[in-house]
Amino acid sequence: MSTPDPRLSINQATIKRADLATALRVTAEAGVPSIGLWREPVNEVGLDTAARMLADSGLRFSSHCRGGFFTLPEGPDRSAALDDNRRAIEETAALAAAGAPGSAAVLVLVVGGLPEGSRDLVGARERVRDALGALADDAKAAGVTLALEPLHPMYASDRAVVSTLGQALDIASDFDASVVGAAVDTFHIWWDPQVLEQIARAGSEGRIATYQVCDWKTPLPADVLLSRHYPGEGVIDFAALTRAVMATGYDRDIEVELFNADIWADAPASVVARTIESFADAVAPHLP
Amino acid sequence: MSTPDPRLSINQATIKRADLATALRVTAEAGVPSIGLWREPVNEVGLDTAARMLADSGLRFSSHCRGGFFTLPEGPDRSAALDDNRRAIEETAALAAAGAPGSAAVLVLVVGGLPEGSRDLVGARERVRDALGALADDAKAAGVTLALEPLHPMYASDRAVVSTLGQALDIASDFDASVVGAAVDTFHIWWDPQVLEQIARAGSEGRIATYQVCDWKTPLPADVLLSRHYPGEGVIDFAALTRAVMATGYDRDIEVELFNADIWADAPASVVARTIESFADAVAPHLP
Repeated sequence: MSTPDPRLSINQATIKRADLATALRVTAEAGVPSIGLWREPVNEVGLDTAARMLADSGLRFSSHCRGGFFTLPEGPDRSAALDDNRRAIEETAALAAAGAPGSAAVLVLVVGGLPEGSRDLVGARERVRDALGALADDAKAAGVTLALEPLHPMYASDRAVVSTLGQALDIASDFDASVVGAAVDTFHIWWDPQVLEQIARAGSEGRIATYQVCDWKTPLPADVLLSRHYPGEGVIDFAALTRAVMATGYDRDIEVELFNADIWADAPASVVARTIESFADAVAPHLP
Repeated sequence: MSTPDPRLSINQATIKRADLATALRVTAEAGVPSIGLWREPVNEVGLDTAARMLADSGLRFSSHCRGGFFTLPEGPDRSAALDDNRRAIEETAALAAAGAPGSAAVLVLVVGGLPEGSRDLVGARERVRDALGALADDAKAAGVTLALEPLHPMYASDRAVVSTLGQALDIASDFDASVVGAAVDTFHIWWDPQVLEQIARAGSEGRIATYQVCDWKTPLPADVLLSRHYPGEGVIDFAALTRAVMATGYDRDIEVELFNADIWADAPASVVARTIESFADAVAPHLP
């Protein structure tokens, strides 16, 4: 049994069926120093209570998941989405303040897919930029970094019209790096022929807001959302990607975020234990 | 009922369960002027017979599918793969000569994924370049263009380590444009933020060897290989992509290639009829 890496963070989605209290407990009991939270379980207990529970756990807070889904055209649904993102920014700030020293005020954004009936990818991408413009002042005032997450292109139509790290950086370039950064998730970008140069670029622009690790293997399950595996169990070259991220000077926590029906069916404490092992084997050897 | 577009080609995979004789007959009887063939049904009857059947059909030949799968490291399996590609080059030349005037001697290449147990994407991609180097003289001598096909990134690990048109063009740049070009298939590249500029680049470099159209929609089926839809039934913007290809001066046939279990279950003549209609609605309005 490995000692948990001092930079390891369990993203709460990895133990999705655990409520907030359980997630905090199994993470802390395993000696993992950090956790990334999701909005739904936080809001299930209320933000103030969640912040107190996080503080009591002694864990660092590595990111809040997630905002975004703002590709809709002007109208009440878009306004509601932006307001919801403003609440997510507040939550992120409160949780980062409640977490142990070294916590990060990072809100991960999954931008959304094509609106129903639309084929206008270019327009949807423009609305992502507009939404960031509408949220930037709120984020800046709260001290929160919005982390644009490029998602694998197989999700381009229904979840995220931002598909590559380079594209995320192009969009982010309109904003201060402290306000808009990028989420670097191995699962989504490992295939990209430009991945190493775009990681270097993200670093030089100061925009790696969070580094998340999880593996890819085929065949994909029937629900392709649930195709994420423990690091080392698939084909991703964690040596090359992790070294590239570390070469930029990235010094925050590293999250393991797994969407996988088999993993969700396991006991949370077992999942955390296996995450510790897989991180130790596949990722930690490539850290400074 | 629409008149078949004078540039429409039925890729044989669209009517996968039809043997060569049936595929040629239903295509010709529907008034479609062109067909793209696959190696297996051609070799089922033998190349000479297939060429004679194609000539008798009066159809143009738009492409041969497919070569590639040459990402293996040095060894007998790699040599066998290269030899098999040489046979595919010969087949392509013979079929292009047998087809009606306007036939194209284009061999589509699906390059292959990561070899079993490997995580070395960069190395696999280098072996693609090496394989093209090994085949270029044979292709040139036969008058055949090798069409590198970037496949959607969801196939990067198991089918094609070439995932974007830009990457295909970078690899092709070592070779004459008459020898190595690219297959532009809407299904694989529609999501790419650089798609329009890379289509323009492909055109200016003289490398659009074939243009194939089929649509994307979600949810994806359990087997993601079979997620291709009639043009117009998904979210792809055929106006933008088709106009971009046409703006380069592309003047060959346009193939419809559909891998879809429901479509394969239909009668071939019905599938051809529906292909004619969907092409007329979704693609033809954007042709010169």
